[in-house]
Amino acid sequence: MAQRRVGLWLIGACGGVASTTALGLSALARGHTPTTGMVTALPQFRGHDFDEPGAFVLGGHDIRKGNFVTAARELHERSNVFDERTLAACVGDLETWSANIRPGVVYRPNAAITALADRGDMRRANTAREAIDAIQADFKAFKTANKLDQVVVVNAASTEPPFEATDEQKSLELLIPALDRPAPAALPTSGVYAFAALDAGLPYVNMTPSRGATLPALEELARKRGVPHAGQDLKTGETLIKSVLAPMFARRNLRVLSWVGHNILGNRDGQVLNDPDNKASKVKSKDLLLAELLGYKPQSHVSIEYIESLDDWKTAWDHIHYEGFLGTKMMMQFTWQGCDSLLAAPLVIDLVRLAALAQRRGESGPMSHTACFFKSPVGVTEHDFGKQFQMLEDYLMAAK
Amino acid sequence: MAQRRVGLWLIGACGGVASTTALGLSALARGHTPTTGMVTALPQFRGHDFDEPGAFVLGGHDIRKGNFVTAARELHERSNVFDERTLAACVGDLETWSANIRPGVVYRPNAAITALADRGDMRRANTAREAIDAIQADFKAFKTANKLDQVVVVNAASTEPPFEATDEQKSLELLIPALDRPAPAALPTSGVYAFAALDAGLPYVNMTPSRGATLPALEELARKRGVPHAGQDLKTGETLIKSVLAPMFARRNLRVLSWVGHNILGNRDGQVLNDPDNKASKVKSKDLLLAELLGYKPQSHVSIEYIESLDDWKTAWDHIHYEGFLGTKMMMQFTWQGCDSLLAAPLVIDLVRLAALAQRRGESGPMSHTACFFKSPVGVTEHDFGKQFQMLEDYLMAAK
Amino acid sequence: MAQRRVGLWLIGACGGVASTTALGLSALARGHTPTTGMVTALPQFRGHDFDEPGAFVLGGHDIRKGNFVTAARELHERSNVFDERTLAACVGDLETWSANIRPGVVYRPNAAITALADRGDMRRANTAREAIDAIQADFKAFKTANKLDQVVVVNAASTEPPFEATDEQKSLELLIPALDRPAPAALPTSGVYAFAALDAGLPYVNMTPSRGATLPALEELARKRGVPHAGQDLKTGETLIKSVLAPMFARRNLRVLSWVGHNILGNRDGQVLNDPDNKASKVKSKDLLLAELLGYKPQSHVSIEYIESLDDWKTAWDHIHYEGFLGTKMMMQFTWQGCDSLLAAPLVIDLVRLAALAQRRGESGPMSHTACFFKSPVGVTEHDFGKQFQMLEDYLMAAK
Amino acid sequence: MAQRRVGLWLIGACGGVASTTALGLSALARGHTPTTGMVTALPQFRGHDFDEPGAFVLGGHDIRKGNFVTAARELHERSNVFDERTLAACVGDLETWSANIRPGVVYRPNAAITALADRGDMRRANTAREAIDAIQADFKAFKTANKLDQVVVVNAASTEPPFEATDEQKSLELLIPALDRPAPAALPTSGVYAFAALDAGLPYVNMTPSRGATLPALEELARKRGVPHAGQDLKTGETLIKSVLAPMFARRNLRVLSWVGHNILGNRDGQVLNDPDNKASKVKSKDLLLAELLGYKPQSHVSIEYIESLDDWKTAWDHIHYEGFLGTKMMMQFTWQGCDSLLAAPLVIDLVRLAALAQRRGESGPMSHTACFFKSPVGVTEHDFGKQFQMLEDYLMAAK
Repeated sequence: MAQRRVGLWLIGACGGVASTTALGLSALARGHTPTTGMVTALPQFRGHDFDEPGAFVLGGHDIRKGNFVTAARELHERSNVFDERTLAACVGDLETWSANIRPGVVYRPNAAITALADRGDMRRANTAREAIDAIQADFKAFKTANKLDQVVVVNAASTEPPFEATDEQKSLELLIPALDRPAPAALPTSGVYAFAALDAGLPYVNMTPSRGATLPALEELARKRGVPHAGQDLKTGETLIKSVLAPMFARRNLRVLSWVGHNILGNRDGQVLNDPDNKASKVKSKDLLLAELLGYKPQSHVSIEYIESLDDWKTAWDHIHYEGFLGTKMMMQFTWQGCDSLLAAPLVIDLVRLAALAQRRGESGPMSHTACFFKSPVGVTEHDFGKQFQMLEDYLMAAK
Repeated sequence: MAQRRVGLWLIGACGGVASTTALGLSALARGHTPTTGMVTALPQFRGHDFDEPGAFVLGGHDIRKGNFVTAARELHERSNVFDERTLAACVGDLETWSANIRPGVVYRPNAAITALADRGDMRRANTAREAIDAIQADFKAFKTANKLDQVVVVNAASTEPPFEATDEQKSLELLIPALDRPAPAALPTSGVYAFAALDAGLPYVNMTPSRGATLPALEELARKRGVPHAGQDLKTGETLIKSVLAPMFARRNLRVLSWVGHNILGNRDGQVLNDPDNKASKVKSKDLLLAELLGYKPQSHVSIEYIESLDDWKTAWDHIHYEGFLGTKMMMQFTWQGCDSLLAAPLVIDLVRLAALAQRRGESGPMSHTACFFKSPVGVTEHDFGKQFQMLEDYLMAAK
Repeated sequence: MAQRRVGLWLIGACGGVASTTALGLSALARGHTPTTGMVTALPQFRGHDFDEPGAFVLGGHDIRKGNFVTAARELHERSNVFDERTLAACVGDLETWSANIRPGVVYRPNAAITALADRGDMRRANTAREAIDAIQADFKAFKTANKLDQVVVVNAASTEPPFEATDEQKSLELLIPALDRPAPAALPTSGVYAFAALDAGLPYVNMTPSRGATLPALEELARKRGVPHAGQDLKTGETLIKSVLAPMFARRNLRVLSWVGHNILGNRDGQVLNDPDNKASKVKSKDLLLAELLGYKPQSHVSIEYIESLDDWKTAWDHIHYEGFLGTKMMMQFTWQGCDSLLAAPLVIDLVRLAALAQRRGESGPMSHTACFFKSPVGVTEHDFGKQFQMLEDYLMAAK
Repeated sequence: MAQRRVGLWLIGACGGVASTTALGLSALARGHTPTTGMVTALPQFRGHDFDEPGAFVLGGHDIRKGNFVTAARELHERSNVFDERTLAACVGDLETWSANIRPGVVYRPNAAITALADRGDMRRANTAREAIDAIQADFKAFKTANKLDQVVVVNAASTEPPFEATDEQKSLELLIPALDRPAPAALPTSGVYAFAALDAGLPYVNMTPSRGATLPALEELARKRGVPHAGQDLKTGETLIKSVLAPMFARRNLRVLSWVGHNILGNRDGQVLNDPDNKASKVKSKDLLLAELLGYKPQSHVSIEYIESLDDWKTAWDHIHYEGFLGTKMMMQFTWQGCDSLLAAPLVIDLVRLAALAQRRGESGPMSHTACFFKSPVGVTEHDFGKQFQMLEDYLMAAK
């Protein structure tokens, strides 16, 4: 039997996360790097029918110039990550996959996003429907040309501002006719891509805080088309640590008085977040889980600032002020210095493997067993990382 | 039915932990302080037959001058904890309980401990048996005089140096006759007190890294007498955080390259730890769990230094160097600033409540469900705080 | 010869800084505390004709209820500073001085300030002139009633928003007639008090980032009346450290790429700073000196957030990203945990001593030798703490 | 007039500092890197007759295999510093200079040093005199072969254990005859090289805490031969910051209660320091200056640990506990993450330039104006970095 071939379609193909994912998959397939950072490579998960690194073919959309090679090189030079030997060994794969990158399709984009778009051949759609059609045509061409058994679509694009779902976005029945309307926009950009993927029967994974497939109408579509989806907002830094430490304070009955988190980073994500509307989405996602984990809402403050010199190295300082026995105030502080793309990329591979597996197993709707990967997991209220991880272990144990 | 009366006998009654426990129990009974910091007071544990704060009567041994009042005042003045109002409200109880403090019984003590002993009426025993008899007489007098239903013995004394168990200490049959021998010592001081408690049928809880009841011969004695015991070495700071963070690194498949922990503190515990032999015991206990939690042994370094100006405020700095995807090295650091006695005292109350409950329920031997309280839990290899806490929840759930 | 008697008039008399200054002066006079934290008490400054602690009589204005006693007690209870013994020993002095506190005079105050005002007998003025007259009457009554040789006025009130000086505020000739106009306001509140002091011939010291006496018209007034003045914005935390560390980076030719400072605090100052307008004043003052110290402007970010649980304990985290040899990026971080009022109060005493001395020596205008005390020193561009301190040493050396 | 040619002879030529110095000089000469990190390149020092990067020819001794190229590559790969482009551009120079590296001469070396020696052609001397002769022959051959105008000798070798100077080491008259004795050793290794340099009339700079030229007999030799020398122990990290922060605490009259410094690093320096004897030298040098800077001796603790994963990235955590006004205890902490070789190399270039200049100007003996570069500056008791820097500015100003 021929090896399965799985397509990985990256929305935001020229970003740091996408290019690191590409480089990582190539390096793994060529035996140039260990599986460090990949959850699906843990010893306890051996024996599952996860797709091997060599099974993947990459493609994607972007509104910016560039490709997997230029993006990986830029990250190498600016953020001092990857070594020359790995880059040299993998550049051929990255070039091949770069040929699969298609210009993005934009439909009423917001200003911060537009500012980034520098690709001449970007396509503008007049209605959401036009955009969806163009995107789906790209998916189809990718699948056919590369003889793929499955394609998983991953949102790794820049963060959109948060918004309240409209009535249309809450009902598939109302949404469908609105797609043909030029304005006001029936769906934000992330929704347009999510609709295109789910409607085409492709599993969809949302790495970002953008709404993506979390609108009720799109969740309805996923169930109707029998497609699994996961999201939203990868948990790779400060929030990950919060979801590990806050349960400790709760279990020891130590009262958190205030929790301040100050995040600085210098990559494109940071640049987009410099727009206050876009930042709101991220801050909200980071701030919400404390009340759920502690059972009460301490004063909390989360800030994210764009500090150019840090490039992809996001640094967080958290200050946790808590009260112990007999009213005694005490303190914990931590700093987290991690490289954003390198923290995210192995989880992209994990989630694509889990989504492809779920589809093969005939599952549809929110992949709630992937809660441990996300700041705002779809279909789950649990935020305790240990308990979320147990959900993944239970799911995979049952699957064996 | 008259309220149950439970004795709490503190070995090291004039230390910070003991005096804070006394002040805390009085303040709780008088409604002067909330139950913050007490695990047994968590909402999910409501409805269990835990003894109320007002049920406790305190007593204990010490080799140093002082009592609950002077020790609490000293802590207040040197470490800037407790408020005057609470001290004033509780001083009567502390005075009453101080009358129950008896001079310590020493049998071949080590040098660092001897240096602390300044009590004129301290008793010296020629054999372990003589010491045990004297200690048991004190227990009995305490129980009778105060009409107690139960007495729980807690080791809150200074840390002993580590040692290898002798053949005698591994077999109750061999140990018993050796107790009558003047030298070499059949048991270290902590073992003498543990023997006295278990042999008298009193539950024994060991807050310290000293061996206490963990010698095989004493575990045999506990089973034989049907007595529950718990220990060893309370997990209240750096190690607590390690047992919460290390599982996160393991679950995310992030490879810990090195974990350095630097601890500074200025209380009597710190002073005793300045003796290299005594320090070894603590460092060992702090360093062991990483390998168990990660599945491999990263380079690790733990230091504890006595810095007088900090008094009871222990401060830890941990530096965690780890490798992520594609060989990228990243970093996490944390500092923990907590007041030692205030972190420990509510857990003393928790463990005494759990030990008294276990005895009433007819349980004996290691209280493995209390693993989440200790750095080196008796009878358990699990070090993951989340899983240890689940063990406590499961035990109490089953008990309902 | 009778001892000199010096009045210290505090604008913002019920704040943390003012009450700590009062408690400190009383405790010093009574020999209850050493001179730790006071620059004028350094060995190298011995022999100068500084006023002894016992020489001072305190008074002041406030728009809030309370007095030196209640404010000191509140600080003690909320922020866990001062000991009961010192409070008990000094309460008499504080009560005596509290009798000298007069209700504030407000003239077109801003919203954040108004929100704090809870004193029923606060006086409202229709013109700046009316306010000045009322304030000067208070000064005069204070001086007469207490038989004072000198009175120094200190601005320790809440921070005002920054603003551009008007033409009137740049020329005493234009300003004088405008004082009689009800609206628009000729001077902000801090300017009204500064005018009152300087015009009455009283030295004026501005602890806050508010403009105070730094308006050109008021500087003209100071010179005309022959009065010395100092300010502005005490340098007691993050900025102090910046003014010490930045010269090191400059001297080692290490290129600062970015300097991020994140400040959290929970006192009234923090509350007022929660108003974005008021915060702007403080942030500007904190951010300005880097360019002067480094010779270029690195990316910098300063934030101040009100975190209630911290009370008077301001905590700063600074992250300094710099480039060394061969383009290598490196990092320094620091945290500063200090109690705001306790850091400021000894410097208030220093500055009052220096201002009284300057007046006795017949000096007038900006006291540029006090630059080392301030974030935005009047009449000086030097921000290097070491060089600023040298200016103070040179001044006092010359004075001997 | 032909350009001056200056030889830079590195003892420890295959170490990180030496290879970075070589790479840096080549990159500077070729215009591949800016002068960041070099003190002599500061704007205020322009116009002095410092040797241009292109003027230098490198050589040196080592007891380990390797050369400038292999050492630079190793640093690049292990510590993630230098970029491929710079390495490629400079490899030719490094190869040329590597041909000037000669096997080390050992005379009664200590164990930790011996453990590192893996060079087959290393030369063993029976007396100090034999070693000195061999070393001076190498200096002479280097100077002649490369037609050098001057040669500066730099000690960048591993740290030696501290020792008390013998009577012989205190008097040149006594020392000279002892050099011919096989045992006991008249001089330690660093003293042998220093003697060889000074006796040959070559300026000598000591980057390490080893004694080098600081023995009284060698200082006598330097004056006799009219040679300038500088040292000892470069100030590039924690101690640099101490020498900047401690004066601030002193000037603000804030009482330092304790100062704890915990250093971790993973390079060869760290490995040698793992030997307790060698570490003592470094710790002593780091710990001494606090008392001088503060005027009293607070409790202090300095530790250095070898943590392999950090390679050349030394990381320090310092915890400063201090007392402010009215007995209030406060805290400052900092972490310093710098790459050891990159911090040191530009200062090596600075010191060689300053030493060559001093020689041309006919100066001899301790170069006290270089105090700002060293932890234990020769001939100077001043440790305040700001004041030390002023000494350098004054010296160069006078030189103009």
